[in-house]
Amino acid sequence: MQVKDCIVSAPGKAILHGEHAVVHGKVALAVCLNLRTYLRLKATTTGKVCINLPNIDTFLCWDLSELKRLIPYSYGKREEVKLLDAELVRRLRDFFGVTNGNLDTCNMATLSFLYIYLSLFGPGELPSLTVSVWSELPTGAGLGSSAAYSVCLAAALLCASGAIPTPLKEWDHTAKWCQEDLEQINSWAFQGEMIIHGNPSGVDNAVGTWGGMLRFLAGKIIPLSRVPLLRILLTNTKVPRSTKVLVARVKDKINKFPSIMTPVLDSVDAVSCTCEKVLSEMTSKPITGEHYNILEELIDINQHHLNVMGVGHPALDTLCQVTLARGLHSKLTGAGGGGCGITLLRPETDSFVVQGTIQDLQDRGFDCWETSIGGPGVQQHSPLSIKEDILEILNHY
Amino acid sequence: MQVKDCIVSAPGKAILHGEHAVVHGKVALAVCLNLRTYLRLKATTTGKVCINLPNIDTFLCWDLSELKRLIPYSYGKREEVKLLDAELVRRLRDFFGVTNGNLDTCNMATLSFLYIYLSLFGPGELPSLTVSVWSELPTGAGLGSSAAYSVCLAAALLCASGAIPTPLKEWDHTAKWCQEDLEQINSWAFQGEMIIHGNPSGVDNAVGTWGGMLRFLAGKIIPLSRVPLLRILLTNTKVPRSTKVLVARVKDKINKFPSIMTPVLDSVDAVSCTCEKVLSEMTSKPITGEHYNILEELIDINQHHLNVMGVGHPALDTLCQVTLARGLHSKLTGAGGGGCGITLLRPETDSFVVQGTIQDLQDRGFDCWETSIGGPGVQQHSPLSIKEDILEILNHY
Repeated sequence: MQVKDCIVSAPGKAILHGEHAVVHGKVALAVCLNLRTYLRLKATTTGKVCINLPNIDTFLCWDLSELKRLIPYSYGKREEVKLLDAELVRRLRDFFGVTNGNLDTCNMATLSFLYIYLSLFGPGELPSLTVSVWSELPTGAGLGSSAAYSVCLAAALLCASGAIPTPLKEWDHTAKWCQEDLEQINSWAFQGEMIIHGNPSGVDNAVGTWGGMLRFLAGKIIPLSRVPLLRILLTNTKVPRSTKVLVARVKDKINKFPSIMTPVLDSVDAVSCTCEKVLSEMTSKPITGEHYNILEELIDINQHHLNVMGVGHPALDTLCQVTLARGLHSKLTGAGGGGCGITLLRPETDSFVVQGTIQDLQDRGFDCWETSIGGPGVQQHSPLSIKEDILEILNHY
Repeated sequence: MQVKDCIVSAPGKAILHGEHAVVHGKVALAVCLNLRTYLRLKATTTGKVCINLPNIDTFLCWDLSELKRLIPYSYGKREEVKLLDAELVRRLRDFFGVTNGNLDTCNMATLSFLYIYLSLFGPGELPSLTVSVWSELPTGAGLGSSAAYSVCLAAALLCASGAIPTPLKEWDHTAKWCQEDLEQINSWAFQGEMIIHGNPSGVDNAVGTWGGMLRFLAGKIIPLSRVPLLRILLTNTKVPRSTKVLVARVKDKINKFPSIMTPVLDSVDAVSCTCEKVLSEMTSKPITGEHYNILEELIDINQHHLNVMGVGHPALDTLCQVTLARGLHSKLTGAGGGGCGITLLRPETDSFVVQGTIQDLQDRGFDCWETSIGGPGVQQHSPLSIKEDILEILNHY
């Protein structure tokens, strides 16, 4: 069986407002972060399935005959993809020799790949192919790198299996799938996320699939119809932290000082809602400097609130100060306690200021990228539309 | 007429929690700041009334005959001291040649002195005396220096006039007045404050009179029955600011983002109430480290809230960071936007840490004092109970 080659990409995710508050029933705004994961799927005639993940030094191949043995006997094409196929997961874990529950990044990535591959092709003939992935996203930084990977896998393998079409026309650089196909990509990406995270919220794969921005409230995910593209800096302080510990810290503080903390959560909720309103206005009316002033004020307010919740960190204070010295406003994004922060750039912020700020932040030992939020979700690419260095990596394997 | 000599002192004031929020109907906690103003009243036979205010380079004398002419004809001893005697104020302003409404610090200080002096002695014979004042408080820093001065004036002149007794016994170092006398001191101090500030809240003179701590809510001032004495550092960043501008800034922000800011004010209110509860517990139960932990957390939370209100300043951020580097917690006190901050010291914080912190803050160009909050209000002193350098200044004139 010969499948179609394709190149796809999916973005990362950042929380614009509402991290932590979302755990306590408040609105969060999750946005597409235009640091992307690229995946190239190539049909081969080697009788093997190969995966190359140079970001995590993982290069693996399996004979098709080997993989065939993993398919459960009772296997048929599944329509319901809300739950994992427990038998297939068990067989895959046995295959990798990880029965104790602890999967490392490499195991999780390959397991979710093979899970989707076998689920989609299992009932019929397994195709010989090679998948190569390169990501601009740092892993384990709360930026949805695993979801971007799962979305790419789902899109490419669904196309390869013929379940959805490849949308790219001969003359296109990039192309998107229709709503119905995106739903399918998102469902299968969520399966990948379940393998990697156990109990994912579904926000990361939704952002990776649809891009733009979405409102997350009490487990419900609502993509916003239109949002402006905002230039940002993404900074990784590289201070390691545990999301679990930070979430518990906020909970403890709420229990300790309910009369003080409850209004803070309400205020964060209002920040998210005000931000959503302003962003929506920016797509329906001419964008003014005042729109950006408000976005900056909201960023500052929320950063102070996150400090009240106890999830700040001196490295994040440094980020805020360094950028403010250049007139730019920053907040942590995600769990806090270190990790990443975002800095809003105004349309008129010139590249001299941006480059200077990046240099200042790198001088503090931080990683820093100029990118954008609110951009496109999963896309198919022509090779010409991919940055040369990334294409080189994808083609190398 | 020969009056009794006396030395009195009154403390400054700091806002522990609730600055700005109090303008919007929330609780504020005002505390006695043990940087004190000392006043020495000495009977003389020169036929003159002299005032020496070396802090502001003011040294003035008037002939009793000159002052007599200022007393309104219809003048009698007034029992009702809630309002200023408009005729006396007019005559005093004429006497100083300030009819346009703008009084400088020196004019305000002498005018309020002569107002209280003439009000208390006017109906009878004017005594010849010299008043010398020295203050440890920086002026114009929101620390109630004018109220401490007015309280001292009221206490010393009320004693000199015989309206209240001098409480100091031969064997005492310091002594306090009874509740009824304090009420009278406070009333007359409020008159002085009205001359200096136009429309004072009455909080500063109440703290200067009663000391300790008081709860201020919707114009009502309630002294707390018992509060612990807390060691603090008081830091003056010396960044000039206008209280009026800062109050207006907060108001604008509330109008701009009501849904975001209203809960912040509620949270500040809860901070004040929680603090009051903890402080009250510290006087009724054994003081534990956890009490101090909570006081520190409340300081941090409120400082973040004040930043949300837009009344922070980089100099105040520096104060917080420098002290946190030594494990100490700080917040702005008063209007913010520069001005002063307080840093809580724990009972076990040793003098090596304190001295190092003071040095660090002075290296940033700040003034810094080790003092306490929650201490005594207005007091009479024996000369022996006054620090030598201050006594020397008071005796010099």
